[in-house]
Formats: sequence, structure tokens, C-alpha cells
Amino acid sequence: MEVVQVLHMNKGNGDTSYAKNSTVQRKIISFGKTIIEEALLELSSNYDIDSMGIADLGCSMGPNTLSVISEIMDIVRATSGHLRRPVPEFRLFFNDLYSNDFNYLFMLLPAFYKMLKEEKGIGSQCFISGVPGSFYGRLLPSNSLHFVYSFSSLHWLSQVPVGLESYAVKHLNKGKVYISKSSPQSVVNAYSSQFQADFSQFIKSRSQELVPGGRMVLSFLGRKSIDPTTEDGCYQWELLAEALMSLVKEGLIEEEKVASFNAPYYAPCAEELKVEILKEGSFIINRLEAFEVDWDGGAVADTHTEQGKMMVGERVAKTIRAVVESMLESHFRMGQDTMDALFIKFAEIVGNHLSKTRTKYINFVISLVRKG
Amino acid sequence: MEVVQVLHMNKGNGDTSYAKNSTVQRKIISFGKTIIEEALLELSSNYDIDSMGIADLGCSMGPNTLSVISEIMDIVRATSGHLRRPVPEFRLFFNDLYSNDFNYLFMLLPAFYKMLKEEKGIGSQCFISGVPGSFYGRLLPSNSLHFVYSFSSLHWLSQVPVGLESYAVKHLNKGKVYISKSSPQSVVNAYSSQFQADFSQFIKSRSQELVPGGRMVLSFLGRKSIDPTTEDGCYQWELLAEALMSLVKEGLIEEEKVASFNAPYYAPCAEELKVEILKEGSFIINRLEAFEVDWDGGAVADTHTEQGKMMVGERVAKTIRAVVESMLESHFRMGQDTMDALFIKFAEIVGNHLSKTRTKYINFVISLVRKG
Repeated sequence: MEVVQVLHMNKGNGDTSYAKNSTVQRKIISFGKTIIEEALLELSSNYDIDSMGIADLGCSMGPNTLSVISEIMDIVRATSGHLRRPVPEFRLFFNDLYSNDFNYLFMLLPAFYKMLKEEKGIGSQCFISGVPGSFYGRLLPSNSLHFVYSFSSLHWLSQVPVGLESYAVKHLNKGKVYISKSSPQSVVNAYSSQFQADFSQFIKSRSQELVPGGRMVLSFLGRKSIDPTTEDGCYQWELLAEALMSLVKEGLIEEEKVASFNAPYYAPCAEELKVEILKEGSFIINRLEAFEVDWDGGAVADTHTEQGKMMVGERVAKTIRAVVESMLESHFRMGQDTMDALFIKFAEIVGNHLSKTRTKYINFVISLVRKG
Repeated sequence: MEVVQVLHMNKGNGDTSYAKNSTVQRKIISFGKTIIEEALLELSSNYDIDSMGIADLGCSMGPNTLSVISEIMDIVRATSGHLRRPVPEFRLFFNDLYSNDFNYLFMLLPAFYKMLKEEKGIGSQCFISGVPGSFYGRLLPSNSLHFVYSFSSLHWLSQVPVGLESYAVKHLNKGKVYISKSSPQSVVNAYSSQFQADFSQFIKSRSQELVPGGRMVLSFLGRKSIDPTTEDGCYQWELLAEALMSLVKEGLIEEEKVASFNAPYYAPCAEELKVEILKEGSFIINRLEAFEVDWDGGAVADTHTEQGKMMVGERVAKTIRAVVESMLESHFRMGQDTMDALFIKFAEIVGNHLSKTRTKYINFVISLVRKG
């Protein structure tokens, strides 16, 4: 499976779309905001920038995409005012994989430009473009960016870990779709090696694109412990595997297919991040923070009633479906009915699990400074 | 009708898609190539460029889009070799209106990047982005471009001419959808004023985006005579109006709707172009050439047989449908059946017309130099 070709959030704005099911991501963004604000204040205080290059890497195409950039522009405008400098020209780059629904994002732009002009007085000084491609490689010219941010994207690998796709090893991780307590060490190693290769490539590419002193704020899922099989790092996949296996039992999908599916995902721990950043050497780590996020974004308070259990299960299932459906579709080639059955089952399993243990995601926010 | 929102070539790659029906545009591109080559040679000989900014304005999303840019890169590579200079980094900007099918274009990019790397040895030195928005306004930062080209787009106005949309005047151009022999002078004036406003805005915006010495090659439909009602400038619209009126007779669409429809299109003459370019003052006109193009791109030879007549009619109808369908849909709100009926009728009318008079399009190619 070529992640570059098949991974995309669910398109459009229907019931299962990403645009309608990105509450968790919105929650995560709100945590990242103060750190973005701090980075931008330091950037603007230290440098007088005429034309500011800003890139959103893994922008997707929901309402979050434009609300974040809008707040970033507010911060820069306020800082410029405070420092009695003119507001810089903005060059905004929205990046995501080739299969992202850029059409949807672009159709939001006429209203966005209108708002910028009427509400913020930013008329002709904002230039927006879409940059399709994998951020595990170069996307933009050298020294063209001042600020880079990426939310809820870097936990996706560039591909299923090398070595886990070939026929000979496909039963290594039987009945599981990601690292699990039952996974052999070779599976764990394949995942962590792929993460190292990808993340170091990401850091290297950005070090070339950012100007000296440029800032980068990255936010993505990870885990607290060094042990990659702890619940906070992988349990949503454990439950998805359980849902898939229950469909195997019903004869709706083949066991073989589950055995050969491994998610192109990795939840690193802080140590793994630091090692790669220090190894590459171009960035100073300004902040590295971890915080917990509810699987449903904290929307459902009480998961102990039958109704609460059902609601939280459904909400989590929708959130995850909007993100992984394209990938499952490409691997399992299942019809819409089977996909629906899978997520009904998954919602039930998640609801039951959360009524017993309130497992949370661990989300990292890292703020980096490009060395001068 | 907001052209910015509704004008787009037919999406995807089905039977009525633009991707499958852009032979005329391909023909036009082939005429423009020698002029592009000349402009690029002069540009590269006079300036040593590290990072070359190139924009395709009104790029659409057919196979033409990438084949033109690919040839441009070949010319620049060859010239660099000849001058014993390193090949510059390429910053490529694909522009079209917000509703263009950028998703389709972007899905072609993985293969395009692969080809660049394997066949041309251009690996990480090419950065492609999509820039949605109207080219009758600023799209990119000041002094960011070295070469701009636009093929088969500038005959589209930014909107239906001011004044022709209001209720009071909608019967001015009854039974016609563009300037016609029967149009009153006020209709002709509204069209030429809109063209002047739009084209001058285009030239002004590009003069800010191009570096001094930068080049621009524009290719679009026009007319030979100063008289805007001559056949070469408008007859395809005359026949489309005829097809629409025949559907009115069949009760399939309302006469009222035809009366209030005016195409956001203008085929200028050379004098009108020169006036606007000289008035703006930033460009030297290096070349201004006009050539004839068959309505079907010259694909069908004999229009005197019944079969030839039918074939040429169908081919022309498909070419025009791929371009104007979005606009007709938005105004007439007609169903797919009526749309099919319209273009069957139109094909018949066109076939009959071309069997008698081989009316051709006039296409201009202008090569401009941004003053230093």
C-alpha cells in the first residue's frame, strides 16, 4: 500500500466526512495554540519580516484548516502592531498528500479571502497556495519559510513499515493491525525503524526550507512510556483489530486480509523524538510537552450509562472512520455495507472499553527553533 | 452569475470531460510553443536565474497542463546546458479558478515527479503548487515570477459584463448569448468595457508579480476585424443560441432564461489588446500574432459527406460542452437529459454550418517583456 496515494481524510462534508468529524483534532489544536503563540511572538520579536512564509503540513480540509491559519495571522498582526511594524505579507502554503480533497479546501477560500479583507483589513497581502506531496521529503524551496506547523499528521508513517508488507512475514502480526502485546519483537523493530527513517527525513527537509531562526510547532499522537505496547500508544488499533476479527468470524472479511494489514502509523515516545532531532542537529528543542486527550475529544461526560456508552462509542468510531476509511477501503476492498458493519461493531467495542477504562491519547506538542 | 465560482472545465475523465475533449486547446498550444521557446531563450540568455518562478494561469486539469510545463522545463534545461550554467530550481505555480478540479491535476503529480526524476534527472529541484483564484487580480507575491503563460483562458471575462445582468436590460440581447449582428450598441459596449477593465487588471497584476525582464506569453481567442460581430469572433455563440432557442420551441427551456443569459466571454481584436498593454505601461510587446484554428482542431477533413458533417459537429459540440457546461448548468438549472439534447442539437447545427462555411477561431499569441 502506497500511503502517498491512498491515505486521505474522508472527503466532502457528509455524515462520515472528516470535515464533520474532527472534534478530537480541534481539541488538540486548542492545546497547541499557546505554544504557537509563544513561537510566533519570539519569531516576530527577533526578526523583522516583510514577507512571512507559513506552511501547514498535513492540512487536510476541514473547518480546522482555515481557523488555525486565521488565528496565526491574528497573532502576527497583533505582534506587528505592538512592535509598531507593518503587518508582513503572508505567503500561506497548505500541504497534504496528493489524494487530499484540495477541491473542498479551495472552495472555502473565496469566503476566507472576503473575511480577511473585511474583518482583518488584509486585502492583497495574503497569497494562498496548495502544495500536494509527502512531507517526508522536500516540498518548498530552500529558506522560503518562517513558520511551519503540523497538527495530527506526523503519527502517520510514509508507508507500512519496510518488511511488514511481504508475503513471508505477513502472519507475523496475526489478528493485529498495529503493535500489540502479542506482536513479536521484529514487528516492533520494523515500526520503530520506519518511524526513525521518516521522522529524520521530515526534520531534514524542514531544516532546509526554514530560514535560520524560523520556528516549527508539531503536534501529533505519541505515548508516555518507552514500551510501545502500553495502552495509550496503541489501544485504538487493538480494538479495531478486534472489530475486524469479529467480521472475520461472521464471514464478512477474510482472515488472510487482516493478517496482511498493518497500519502505517506510529506513536513515538519523547526519547525517540529527541534522538532524531538531536541527530539531525539543525533544531533547538524549545518545548516538548505531552498531554492527554479523550478519544472522543471529551464530548461525552458519563460513559457508565448505557446511552453514554453508546454515544461515546459512536463518536469515537466516527472520528476514527473519517481518518482510516480510505486506507481500509484500499486494503480490504470491502463494500459500504461491510464498512458500516465494521464501524458499528467498533463503536460497540469502544463503548464497552471506555465504560471500564478511560484510555486516552497522548498528544505531543514540540516547539523547535531552526539554528541560526 | 459569479464566474469566479461557477466557471470550470468539466471534471474527471469521462466522455464529456475536459481532459478527454481538449484537442483544440492542444492545437493552440502547439502554435504557441515556438513563441514560448523564443521567450525562454531570451530570458535565460539575459539573466542567470537560480530559482525560476513559472506560472500557468488558467491551467485547467487536462493532459495539456503537465505536457506544456514539461516542455518548458526541457527548454530551460537545454538552454542552461548550452550556456554551461546549472539548471535552475523550478517553482511551478498552477493557477485556475477555485472550482477547477485541482484534485484531478494533483493526482497526476506523483507520476509527473517520477518522470522528472527518472527521465530528466530533475529530482528535488522542482516545487509544484496550486494557486486557486482569479487571475484578474493578484495571485502571487511581488517579483516572484520569471515566466508566465496562459493558454485558452483570457477570452473568459471575470463576470457577465456589468449592466447586462440586471432585470431591466435582460431583454436587450434577446435570443442571443453573446454579441451578435442583432445586438444593440449598448450590449457591444458593455462587453468591450468589461474586457478593458479585466484585461488591464490582468496586465497590472502580472506586472507586479514578474521580475524586471520577466516574460509572459498569452494565447487566447480573439477576432481579426475591429467589428465585434464578424463571424470569426462570435459565431460559435450564435449557433449555441440557435440550439438553445430550438429547445425553447420544444418547451424544454424557458425563453426568459435564454434572454437573461450572456456569456462571460470576449474575443478582442489586436488593437484593443495593444491599447490596454500600452496604457498600463510596464510591458514591451515583443510579438503579437494571430492564427486560425479549426473549430474541431482540424481533426476531421471532409465536412461535405453526411458522416463527416456529423462527426465534425459532434466533435466541436463536445469540445465546447467540456468548457461551457458548468456555466449553462448554473444559469439554466437544466437536467442531464436537457443538456444532452442541447448538445445533440448544437452538434447538428454546427455540422450543417461547417459543411457550408468553414468558420475558424482566431487565436492570438502575445509575447511580452516586463520592462527593467
